[in-house]
Amino acid sequence: MYERFFKNFNSKVNLSKEEQDVIQNFLTPKKLRKKQYLLQDGDPCKFLAFVEIGALRSYSIDEKGNEHIIQFALENWTISDLYSFLTDEPSIYNIDALEDSELVLISKTAHEELLLKVPKYETYTRLQLTGAYIAMQKRLTSIIGSSLEERYANFNALYPDIVQRVPQHMIASFMGLQPETLSRIRRKIATKK
Amino acid sequence: MYERFFKNFNSKVNLSKEEQDVIQNFLTPKKLRKKQYLLQDGDPCKFLAFVEIGALRSYSIDEKGNEHIIQFALENWTISDLYSFLTDEPSIYNIDALEDSELVLISKTAHEELLLKVPKYETYTRLQLTGAYIAMQKRLTSIIGSSLEERYANFNALYPDIVQRVPQHMIASFMGLQPETLSRIRRKIATKK
Repeated sequence: MYERFFKNFNSKVNLSKEEQDVIQNFLTPKKLRKKQYLLQDGDPCKFLAFVEIGALRSYSIDEKGNEHIIQFALENWTISDLYSFLTDEPSIYNIDALEDSELVLISKTAHEELLLKVPKYETYTRLQLTGAYIAMQKRLTSIIGSSLEERYANFNALYPDIVQRVPQHMIASFMGLQPETLSRIRRKIATKK
Repeated sequence: MYERFFKNFNSKVNLSKEEQDVIQNFLTPKKLRKKQYLLQDGDPCKFLAFVEIGALRSYSIDEKGNEHIIQFALENWTISDLYSFLTDEPSIYNIDALEDSELVLISKTAHEELLLKVPKYETYTRLQLTGAYIAMQKRLTSIIGSSLEERYANFNALYPDIVQRVPQHMIASFMGLQPETLSRIRRKIATKK
């Protein structure tokens, strides 16, 4: 239990046995079956969710009912709505499971207490945020500065696991494209090879 | 000197006089005239730059010579290429001054020593990153989920200072649009009013 969570944590900041025990007391395991929700829009996001096993996505739904995927999360990734988590405002996102999943949840109270009690938890949080910020900056640079083919090629290179495990129409949504546009790009890339 | 920097810092984490003195020793002031570079692509980004006075932008240049603006920074904002700063890899971005500017630089060595010596500096870094991450997530949600008019209206509402101080063609670039497209959207919005 919590195996991947602590492996990931220790790869960033090395914990003593005592520190690990303190942190473990603040964690909550959670299982989701495929298609179950972890968060529904309108509710505040009350946790940071680390993926031990499985795959999730966060997305918004616009006035016309279209889904816009913000993030995928596979093993070792953390998913949440950070803005809602920090402000208690209702979230504009949904998070649901794309596969049967096992998560490690850190509630807001747990997060705040851990920041006070375990200095290494603050370091871990800073490093997690840094990684998330850099990943998002790369995605943004790719969206505003690259052709569609380059964007899809980048995505394939960066996230081969997602391409294998997630339906194509969701990858199109993540890239802000119509599914037909993505199919056209994939054909174009396949022809070039 | 460093007035806005410490006001911003204290608004996030309150420093004692002693802590402020320690931090101040690690800061470097820097002045840039309009159009001068703080960073050129190909060089590693060696600092975090806080804006005391002025306006800067970071941008990439694609193969065709087109500029793609990633970020603007006015007073109280921090600008850098975090990926390059942390990895020492050459940056793919340029940062230059849009107005005569006064900056507070934190070098990589200073950043690392401050993280070790001043626990509140780590908290400050975490909070800065959180704010930057949330701002970028909002921008991404807006890019992939909203109409162009909504995106421009959001940008206007969130960053009225930038709209006033930065040329329209740069705002178009920041939004990933051709300048003509932005002009068309602005006319459309003006007609509706």
